[in-house]
Parts: sequence; C-alpha cells; structure tokens
Amino acid sequence: MAVIVQKYGGSSLADADKIRNVANRVIRTQDSGNQVVVVVSAMGDTTDELLGLAHNISEKPDAREMDVLLSTGELVSCTLMAMALRGMGRKAISLSGAQAGIRTDTSYGRAKIAGIDPRRILAELERGNVVIVAGFQGVTEDMDVTTLGRGGSDTTAVAIAAGLGAERCEVYTDVDGIYTADPRLVPHARKLEEVGFEEMLELASYGAKMNPRSIEIGMYYDVPILVASSFTDRPGTLIHRGADMNANVGEIRNRVRGIATDTNVAKITMLGVKDRPGIAASLFEPLAEADVSVDVIVQNAGEDGTTDMTFTVERADLDRALEVVETVAKELGSRGMVSAGNLAKVSIVGTGMQDSPGYAARMFRALADKSINIDMITTSEIRITCLVDEDRVADASRALHDAFQLEQPDS
Amino acid sequence: MAVIVQKYGGSSLADADKIRNVANRVIRTQDSGNQVVVVVSAMGDTTDELLGLAHNISEKPDAREMDVLLSTGELVSCTLMAMALRGMGRKAISLSGAQAGIRTDTSYGRAKIAGIDPRRILAELERGNVVIVAGFQGVTEDMDVTTLGRGGSDTTAVAIAAGLGAERCEVYTDVDGIYTADPRLVPHARKLEEVGFEEMLELASYGAKMNPRSIEIGMYYDVPILVASSFTDRPGTLIHRGADMNANVGEIRNRVRGIATDTNVAKITMLGVKDRPGIAASLFEPLAEADVSVDVIVQNAGEDGTTDMTFTVERADLDRALEVVETVAKELGSRGMVSAGNLAKVSIVGTGMQDSPGYAARMFRALADKSINIDMITTSEIRITCLVDEDRVADASRALHDAFQLEQPDS
Repeated sequence: MAVIVQKYGGSSLADADKIRNVANRVIRTQDSGNQVVVVVSAMGDTTDELLGLAHNISEKPDAREMDVLLSTGELVSCTLMAMALRGMGRKAISLSGAQAGIRTDTSYGRAKIAGIDPRRILAELERGNVVIVAGFQGVTEDMDVTTLGRGGSDTTAVAIAAGLGAERCEVYTDVDGIYTADPRLVPHARKLEEVGFEEMLELASYGAKMNPRSIEIGMYYDVPILVASSFTDRPGTLIHRGADMNANVGEIRNRVRGIATDTNVAKITMLGVKDRPGIAASLFEPLAEADVSVDVIVQNAGEDGTTDMTFTVERADLDRALEVVETVAKELGSRGMVSAGNLAKVSIVGTGMQDSPGYAARMFRALADKSINIDMITTSEIRITCLVDEDRVADASRALHDAFQLEQPDS
Repeated sequence: MAVIVQKYGGSSLADADKIRNVANRVIRTQDSGNQVVVVVSAMGDTTDELLGLAHNISEKPDAREMDVLLSTGELVSCTLMAMALRGMGRKAISLSGAQAGIRTDTSYGRAKIAGIDPRRILAELERGNVVIVAGFQGVTEDMDVTTLGRGGSDTTAVAIAAGLGAERCEVYTDVDGIYTADPRLVPHARKLEEVGFEEMLELASYGAKMNPRSIEIGMYYDVPILVASSFTDRPGTLIHRGADMNANVGEIRNRVRGIATDTNVAKITMLGVKDRPGIAASLFEPLAEADVSVDVIVQNAGEDGTTDMTFTVERADLDRALEVVETVAKELGSRGMVSAGNLAKVSIVGTGMQDSPGYAARMFRALADKSINIDMITTSEIRITCLVDEDRVADASRALHDAFQLEQPDS
C-alpha cells in the first residue's frame, strides 16, 4: 500500500467545520487505497496568541521555554484531528513530534531536523491508524522540545515523507498552487501545473509560500510535493524532479517559470572604506555573531582607493544590524553609513535561463520601460533579482509577467 | 538545602500579573534558602476551553486524544512561569510531566501515578534552577500522555514532594486554608490551623477542595501539606500527621474538626427484590462495568422476604446508572425503581469521634431540631454522613457547626 503524507496549514484547521472538512479529505485519500500520515499546523491564529501570552510575561522570553509553549498549538490541532477522524469511524492516533521520532539539533526556535525514527509511525500505520503528527516540532537528544521556525510544518511533512519512503507529500493550504507571480500584484498570474525543486526553491526563498528547507529535503530525497488548496478540489502544483528536467528539453518552452517578490528588505551601505583585504570579514563576522542574516552583498570600488559596501537584511534585523555597522564603520575609518527600509526584491526564476543569454537584458529593459529604478542586482544560476522601491514592486511584477509572456500556458 | 514543592492552581495563574505574583512568591521561598519545585495547573479556564474545542469536534472524544489535548494547558502555564522567573533574573526551567519523570498507568482521563523518576528534577535543581513542572499529567510506559483527573495537579505536587523527600508541599489556591465548614454555607466558619491526614481525607472526599489521592500520598509518605492562598500572606492550614495525634490527647479538644458537604449526589432505589445471596453482586458488577462509581449503599430487608437496595452516585452518572439498573431490575424480578437527583451529603469529621459515643445522637438531634429530614446515614471511623434534601444543606451545616461549637478556636 502506498503511503501519502498530507500537511494541512493553520487556515485549513481554523475551526471545527474546517477540521471536519480536512478529515473528509483524509478519508477519501485512505479510501483510494493509501496509508495516510497527516501533519498539522496550529489552528488559525493560535501561534500568534501564544506569542502574545509570552510577551505579556517577558520582554525577551527564553527560547527553550518559548518552544515548549509554541509546540502546544500543534498538539491541540493534532488531537482534534484524531478525534474528528474517530468520530467518523476511522482509526486514528495523534503523535507529538517526539512520539513521531522527529529528532532535531538544539537551536531553539529554528531547529534543524537531524533525523527521523519512523518506527512508531510505521507501527501505528500497521495497526490501521491514520497517523496525525504535530508539525513544526521535534525533540533534542535530551528530550527537550524544539520548534522548526516559521513554516516548519512543511519541513516536518516532507521529512516524514522522505523517512517513510512515501509516494508523495501533499501540502494543503489556502492557495491552490504555485503561481507565475503573486496574484495580488499580477491579477492575470497563472497557476503552474508543475515546477522543479530548484525553481521552487528560488520561488520559496523569494516570497512564494513554502518553507525552503522543506523543498531542499524534497529535492535531496526525491519526494514529489503537491501544493494545493484544502478548500477546493482543483489540482494544485506538483513540485518534482521531472519538472526541472523538462525545462531543458527545447527552445519552445518558456524558460522563465515565475516572478518572485519579497518586500521584507532593508538596505545598509557603509561608505568610503579604504579598500584592502579583509574588510568584508571585519563587517560580516560581527553581523553573524549578532545573528543578523545578510542577503545580497554588493561592493563598489571607487577610484580614490575607497569602496562602498552595500548589503540587505530582513527589516526586523535592521536596527540590530545598524548597531553593529556603526561600530565597525568607526574601526574601519568609514565616511559613514546610509540605510533604507523601503526596498523590495523582484526576481525572475527558471531553470534553463543560464544557458540562454538575454534574459537579464530583457528584464532590465522591461523595468526601464516602466521607469522603475533598479537599486541592486543579484543573480543565481536560475534567478535574476532586482532591488526596487517597495512602491514599484507591483508595477515591476506586471511588467516582467508581460515581458516573459507568463500568462501563456506551459508548452 | 531543603526542597519545597509549591503547587499553584489555575485561579492563581489566570493572567500575566497573577503569574508574576506567583513568581515573586517562588523567589521569596528560594531566598529563604530552599530549592524550589513549582507544580502548576492550567491558567484560569483553559481546561474548560479545551474541553469545548473537543466537544465541538466529537460528541464522544477519544480518551487518549483528550488527555494529550488537556495536557497542553499545563504546558502553557509552566513555560510562562519559567519565563516570568527568568525575566526576574532567576534560573528556571519548565518540565512536562514526562520530562519530570511522572509515570502513570494507562487509565486515560484519571490515570494513577505509578512512580516518579526524580533524576531530571534533581539534576535541574543541582544546576540552580527553579524547576516548574506541568501538573495533572504523566506518561505511560509507551510514552503516551495521560492526565490524572480533576485536581490532579495536587497529586502531582504531593507525589513529587514524596519522591524528592521534600520538607513540605505547599498547595496554593484561591482560598486561604481548610475551614470548619464551607464559608458560603456557614458564614462564621473558622479556618483550621492544622488538620490530620485522615480528617483531611474525609473533608476532601466530601467537598473541601483537595484531591483525595493527593492526601493519601501525603499520608503514606508523611509529607506535610500546607494549604494556603496565593493572594495573601495569611498562614493557611497545615495537614500533617501530628494533627491526627494531637486529636487524641485529651477530652478538652473538640473532636469534630469540620463539616463537609457535597451536593453532587443522586440516589437510586431498586424496590422489592427477593432477598437472596448475590443480589448485590448482580447489581454492582454491571454498574462497575458501566464505569459508574457507587458511593453510599443501604440495603433494607423487608418483612415479606424482599429487600430494597438504595445507593448514591454522582449526578453526572445518574442516567447511565439508571440504564444499568433497569436491566438488572428486570432480571432480578424487582418491583421497580425510584431515583432522585436533588440530594446532598452533610458530614461531621474528626479523629477521636470513634472513641466517644454520642456524636451521632448529637448530630441527629441538631438536624431534627431544625426539622431536617435524614434520608440515609453512613459512617466511617472518623466521619458521620447524613443525606438530606439539597435545599436544606445550608441549614444543616449551620445547625451542626453550632451544635459542635466549631466557631471556637482549637484548644
């Protein structure tokens, strides 16, 4: 019998009716002849409510305690799901992350899965149970509870699918798939039938709703991932290895798969530093120690032997980053620093772009035609990203969607 | 260093301010030179809210799932308490029932503690931590979560105190001790400074607010238990072995220690059963199988060779009990059955009563003087209980409080 892992997000579990709706979907999957493992997030706004409780108690809640607190949200939803299934006459059992054998490192709040011991899940499947696993959580070697960070339930689901050798991991959410662009910005954005892991990784990193770590695990263990809506029966988007391969087949296929956007971007520039080896390390080492994640980095050597060092961070980290940079700037004899909190990234993503020149030029031309100023540029093998003013991000998305004819179906 | 175990109930933890208030009490106890273990209940109405969630999903939620669901309430409060203490500069760590080594049997919803493995608690105390333990919960050998039933956090606290050889277990609640009677019924009821385990056991079984199982554990392991309010610094009531012993010292001491009341009583009578060996078993075996707890049992043999069998159950069990009795009554050729849901128990409790006759007579006289009809009578070594109409229970309490002069201080 094939094993299917299904993951349901908080909006799909927000109340009793929605939970019963999900239970019905699970039952249909089981009735099609599958063993089913269900991974659940916390109901609706539970996680935010728990965060609120903690911040009422303490300005800086302890990370270990916070993880136990947050983990209760998924325990609640997984027991309710098991009750719903039992109420419909199915055998079902809930398992915490610990019971499901999800072992992690000790990085509270953003733990990484270190391994899966699937014995308990397998034993419960053997007994004919639908197995409901609390997402987003695991345990350390010392049996202390950890959480996996935002979107961690996606990671739980794909990791379990990998650990069980499942046929497929299905991720159900409130959107019905992966789109060529954010439909709120580009009304004629089109849903993709399939997308490759690497493409999805770039899309997920830059705004589309899946935890990048879950895509990496899917790619590494070759687990096909279906992203679909729990509220409709529309087909969704299948993320799988084949989609990457198809991308290289011929000239006909449109190589830009989608437009990704991210408005959570702030920029810092350290001006006029004397250009010598080691200045990048002097800046980025202390930033790493202060737990600031740096994204795009651009260094412009000037003609006077000084250089400007520009980089982007998440907006929430801007103040912390500025503190660090201020100290470093003094040490390095910088002329000063400037920062901006109102930037956005807009990217075109697609495998195959690297083999064909001209994509970057077409992108820059499309933005120029709309008088959209490009602040920084960064590229990966399958992505070209421009930083633009946040208030132009919708214009930019539409311009690029048109320029690359993304409204036309996959060939 | 002495170990003190403190238990705080849900009303003492209802919001952030109350949690900080409790944290301050814990700090004072630590600053007096003690190692402190704190056992917490769920905040305020959390347990009822979780029950509501479950009943929205399923009319008859599965017991195993329900226990995981309910256990989250205590996880939340114990992490918040740990955060509060850390926010005040103390080392503190929260432990789930499983992490605290609370092993139970598999009776979901009312599991019994099978043993305590105190190693983790001891290790955390050694590290200088205040250890916060989630009350009301444990784990089976298979690491499945169980709950201990209403008032289970009291049991957790006393069992941990016993397991650690603690100097004292302090149970903090919204009342400031054990009274000679329910102050809502008897306004001049007086707080007791001390009370014996056996007396407390009778008081706890019949209405005073402590889990009887916790008293039994305290009695068995000789753990002194202080019951006091978390909202005041008034002294509370100490439950300890010495109090029982003092009770036998002399004639001067008032032997009735308190009046216990319980309005959660329903009565069933099976009428006119032919009197022969085994009829009690034929009735009470199926009731036990139906999970109905029977309390008082009275059998009246009539002159015609038939007997009436009367017994009391909790009101919530009345319908289920009637179903069973109906079947049995037919099998036994009973004349029929009658039931009443509006009864109450009123008891006088005190060690030493058994050595001195006349207490029962004084009790019945006091009730008769107020024209209170006695429906059934039952006694233990240190308790005499009368069943009366529920609407007379306040009158009965006041009459008995006066008759035994309980408003006068302990000699």
